[in-house]
Parts: sequence; C-alpha cells; structure tokens
Amino acid sequence: MENFKIDNPTIVHFGKGVVGDLGNVVSAYGKKVFLVYGKGSVKKNGIYDAVMQSLKEAGGEVSEFSGIRPNPVIGDVDAAAAAGREFRPDIILAVGGGSVLDSAKIISVTIPVDHSGWLFMKNKAKPASAIPVVAVLTLAATGSEMNPFAVIQNHETKEKLGWGNRLCYPAHSFLDPSYTFSVPKDYTAYGITDLMAHALENFFGEGEASLSDRFVFSVMKEAIEYGPLLLNDLYSYRLREKIMYAATMALNGLTLYGRKYGDWGVHSIGHVISLLFDTAHGATLSMAYPAWLKLHQERIPGRIGELGRAVFDTGDPGETISNLEDFFKSIGSPVRLDEAGISDKDKEALLPVMIRNQVGGNHHKLSDRDREKILEYMAGR
Amino acid sequence: MENFKIDNPTIVHFGKGVVGDLGNVVSAYGKKVFLVYGKGSVKKNGIYDAVMQSLKEAGGEVSEFSGIRPNPVIGDVDAAAAAGREFRPDIILAVGGGSVLDSAKIISVTIPVDHSGWLFMKNKAKPASAIPVVAVLTLAATGSEMNPFAVIQNHETKEKLGWGNRLCYPAHSFLDPSYTFSVPKDYTAYGITDLMAHALENFFGEGEASLSDRFVFSVMKEAIEYGPLLLNDLYSYRLREKIMYAATMALNGLTLYGRKYGDWGVHSIGHVISLLFDTAHGATLSMAYPAWLKLHQERIPGRIGELGRAVFDTGDPGETISNLEDFFKSIGSPVRLDEAGISDKDKEALLPVMIRNQVGGNHHKLSDRDREKILEYMAGR
Repeated sequence: MENFKIDNPTIVHFGKGVVGDLGNVVSAYGKKVFLVYGKGSVKKNGIYDAVMQSLKEAGGEVSEFSGIRPNPVIGDVDAAAAAGREFRPDIILAVGGGSVLDSAKIISVTIPVDHSGWLFMKNKAKPASAIPVVAVLTLAATGSEMNPFAVIQNHETKEKLGWGNRLCYPAHSFLDPSYTFSVPKDYTAYGITDLMAHALENFFGEGEASLSDRFVFSVMKEAIEYGPLLLNDLYSYRLREKIMYAATMALNGLTLYGRKYGDWGVHSIGHVISLLFDTAHGATLSMAYPAWLKLHQERIPGRIGELGRAVFDTGDPGETISNLEDFFKSIGSPVRLDEAGISDKDKEALLPVMIRNQVGGNHHKLSDRDREKILEYMAGR
Repeated sequence: MENFKIDNPTIVHFGKGVVGDLGNVVSAYGKKVFLVYGKGSVKKNGIYDAVMQSLKEAGGEVSEFSGIRPNPVIGDVDAAAAAGREFRPDIILAVGGGSVLDSAKIISVTIPVDHSGWLFMKNKAKPASAIPVVAVLTLAATGSEMNPFAVIQNHETKEKLGWGNRLCYPAHSFLDPSYTFSVPKDYTAYGITDLMAHALENFFGEGEASLSDRFVFSVMKEAIEYGPLLLNDLYSYRLREKIMYAATMALNGLTLYGRKYGDWGVHSIGHVISLLFDTAHGATLSMAYPAWLKLHQERIPGRIGELGRAVFDTGDPGETISNLEDFFKSIGSPVRLDEAGISDKDKEALLPVMIRNQVGGNHHKLSDRDREKILEYMAGR
C-alpha cells in the first residue's frame, strides 16, 4: 500500500427524521444561513418545509439561491457566490443531490474571493478559506455528502471538471433515506450506476490495497443485490437506506485508502457526453464503463478477473464485463449511446472533444485510438 | 438499520516513516508532552528513539510515565494521572499497543479531576474534559487507535471493564506497520484473533445492517488470507500492513454502523479469564468464541450460516464454527483452556466470577447454565 491519511471531517447524520436536528447543528455556526437548492422539487416533496421548520425553530436568518441545474454550470455557481458575498452567511446549507452539493462546495470557496470559482477548478487559484457547508441529501448517487469533490461544467470552454480541496468536505451531512422516495425510477437507477462506477474507478486506480478492494466489492454487491429490488419498490425505506449508505461509502475514502489514486478515466469520458448532450451523469457511466472495460480486457485481464470472482462469480474477464453490462441494462441504465438518445450523427461530435480534453485516467492513460475504440464500443460495434 | 452518526474524529497517519511527522503534529497542541508507554520494549526496538527524535526536533518538553502492563490495571492509570496532574501536559503521547492506548485514554480524563479513573469506568462519574491523546501504535490488535474505548482491570474488585466516551478518541494515531515487526509470533496471532473477534462481536450485535455485515466479512477474510502468511514472515512490511489496517477497520465504527450495538458477550467472558489468569486478551477470545458459537449454534443457525457462506464457503453453522476454531488453532491461538495453561482445577475459579460479573452480551444474554456450558466447551467437553 501507499502511505495514506484517514482524515474525513464530515459528520454524517443517517436515518429517519435526522433533519429534525438540522437547526441545532446549523445554529452552532451562526444565524445567517445561505440556502442553496435546485429547481424546486424540494418544495413539492415537503423537504423544503421540513428544513425551514428546523431552521426556524433554531432562529436562523435564511437567504435563498435556487435553480441549480443537474450537470451544474459555473455560471450558476458564480451567480450564487455573488449573492452570498452580499449576504455574508455563517453557513451554506445545500439541499439537494450531487449537483447542489458540488455547487455549494465551489460557492463556499468563491464567496470569500473576488473571482470566478472556475479558477479554482482549473487550479489557477488556491482557496484559502471556505464558508462551512451543511448538506441535506435528496439523491443517493455521487457521494458528495462525505467527500471534498465537486464536478462542474463550463459551456464556454466546453469543459466538465472534477476538483477537490480539503476545505470542501461538508461539515455535516444529513441523510434521511425517505428524502429520496420521490426520486423517479430512471434517476434511482443512474444513482446505482454512479455509486458502482465510483467504487470501480477506485478499484482500477494505481496501487495494491487488498482491504480497499474488498470494500469495493462490498459496495458493489450491496448495489447489485438491493438496487433491482429498490427499482420495483421505490418507497421502501429499507431499500432506499441500503442504496443511500452504499453511495456514501463508495466515495468517502474507504474504497481508496492505500492506493495512490483512483483511475477516473471513465468519468472523464462520461463528462464529455454530459457536456455535449446534457445526459444524466449515471447514464453516461453505464455506457462508458463496459466500453472502457472492453478496451482493457486484454490489457488487465487479471484485475478484471479479480473483480469478476468477487462480485459476479466468474474469473473470466469477458464474462465479468458482460455481467456488468447486463446488470446496467437490467436496471434500465443505458449501455449504448442510442439508448440515451445519442444518434450516430450526434456521436461524431464526441471524439474531437474527447481528444481536446485529453480524456483518460490517472492510472490507465488513453490514446486517441483508445478514445475512438471506446466510442465504437459505446455505439455497439 | 438503526439511525446512526458517523463522527470519528481520529486522524490516522498510516505507513512507513509517518512518525517523522509526529513532532509537528504534537506541537500544534503545545510543548508539554506526557509520554506514556509500557515495560520498555520500545526502548529496545528503536521506536522510543524515533519518537523522541521527532519530538525533540519540534521542541517538545517531555515527561515520562512507563511500566503500563499488558492487561492494564487501574492502579497504574491512577498513578500516571497523578503524575500527569503535576506536570500539566498539553498532550498525552501514548506509545504502545492497546494496553498503553487504553490506559492513556483513561489517564486523559482522570488528570483533570481529583478521583480515580475507575469511577468513570463504573459510570459513577462523567468526564467533562480530556487532555488530547496522540498515539503511536506498536501492536495490531485492539483497534484502540481509532475508537473511544478502553478496557481496564481492577484486581481489588475482580472486574475487567470496557468503557468509552467521545472525549477518548485519539486526536491522531500514527500507524507504521514496521513498528510491529518485533511483535513475537504468539502475540501477532493473538492480535489476529482479537481483530477477528471485534468484527464478530459487531456481526452478532442487534440490528440488520447488510453493508456493515459485508465490511465484517471483508475484515475477516483479510485476516484469514494474510494472517497465516504473516506468521511465517514476521518481518514482511506488506503483511504487517494488511493486518494493521484490518485491525483498525475492525473496530472504528465501520463494522457497526446501522446496528443498535455489538454483542460483546465473548469479550466479557475473555475478560474474566484474563483477570484470573493474566491470559493474553486475544488468547482468551480464540477459546471463548468457538465455545460461544457452539452454545448459539441452534439458537441463531441462520446468522452463523450467513457468516459461514461469506467467509468459509459453507452455509452450515457447525462447519462454520469448526472452520473458525481450526483457523485459530492453525495460527497458534489456543482454543482450549489447557492450551492456555489453565487446568481443570484452575477452571473451577472461573464460573463464580463469570456469574458474579454477569458476563453476557448486549444482544445475546447468557444464563448461568449458558456460562457453565461455555466453560465446558472451552474445556473441550
């Protein structure tokens, strides 16, 4: 193993009704709460009211910024930061899924400065301080609730970047599985794909770390056992709970400790698809992961076989890949571009951006020919 | 699952040479370092020198308390607290295995008060503050490096108690696998037994938590795969590393989240054996766990079978138990009282103390007849 540090400061409050404590937790940081959320679904499903109730009881003064989009954009982040700069919050309260949480993280470091948050994402500036973020999670998928990472896109530069800084761990995250009841079937499936992809990115990273491998398998088996059951029973607290917890553990460090880094090549491919076609993040991963694995089938058969033995009861790399692809298909997460509404003609736009953005992994680099092949696999050829 | 909180503040520094950072980390708390260690093996293997070197470079002022015994006693803890009260340390630096770390935790809450630490252990007093503890671990076993628990014995009252308080998490723990090179074969094996027993105590606790179950299996499989290899290669960094990391993850919360509590019945039996015969903690557990399982074989066959399927490739409860017993035997951890030098005659002393101390679990209670049966199983009948 590589030397590593376990230093994850996020306090997670998990379970039914935990948001009742939100006001108390938030008020420890001060009265001024900058509430960030998405396009208003939290107003329909009662989560907004529960949050406001808890804040009100604790005497919070709330300023709101809403309208954060799925596949969040830097324009929204900068606009929110400008509003936050005027309000001077003690705390940012992010209520939503990964898009809202990721945006809140960049807002938290952008409020104290006088430039776009994009400079941080491009590593052209380094944050010196952050407004603390508290999260109320409404979607099980990204793991953003217990890590310091954010993924934001910039349509002007045609980039979608992942970035992290220790300042960006949420101080507290509230995870009530019943808050994900109203997530529709397709996005529930994309969340399952996403959490599995996170475990896989770490598994295919650099460095031997056998216990972290076992944690990868644990998270994947949980998703494979309970994910399909959940899709047939969207209001099952017990099943929502299992997927929500698995998503958090997939990307909070546990599946990585002892490795140099995760790979993240598949995510970088997925990001290009989302950037060009606004495809749901999880849906891009169920197309890109099998394709990436097919490209690597003969390069790292041993590693793919290890995964297969632990998760799919087969040591054969090819069978492992088709098992994974079949699983994604079975939960309704697309495995071919046309299933995500991306035609052969649309597809032509992908390769140039994949090349320009130099998509590829930290561990497994990709050549232009590799990128082309991955596209062919995703097109089903 | 039960509602739960993930809130483990210990920062773990894992890997070769991490103690080089110790001085810097410690000096953030102040200059006055109260160094607590055992009977001096750290002076023989060079660990004491490395620690002092790092402290010296950071300008620390060190006062020492040495002589903490394995199976630590409250008398030592109180004596150390008295010395600490005079010195008024900014930080307690615990260098050793679980006994030293556990003692340091109780010392840390006893220095600020004017009574014995035993009152905390008996829940007759509640600590209001603690001197921060930094740990340098020299034995992979107890998990004390990343949890708030301490086990201390009191020969006067014939009690050995486990106790924990949030104040007692180490602030930092330094885990360099090479610091465990000089642990002899028998104590290395007892450490393996101990970490497996921790995972099992949580597995047999109350409440359904499937992902925590998988983490239990992960930790156990790691111990079963690499433990025997380590015993034949005590100076293998790679193998020391695997066991050290597994021991930490066995009892830092990960194997418990979502359950009401662990069982800990087997530990309470083991504590009585240590109390009366000063038997190494891990050695008591390899005798008590198979015996406890035999008692429960017909009470919870499904649960034992789950463990067997995941870890031993058998769903049969009886085979699961004999596999576990055989494993302990194979690593040289005793499975019968006579193997630990406890004769049939000695054995007579155990039952009255087991009854008086009401040994048993949080989830699986034991009757006097159960206690007697467990003793019979441990005697090989």
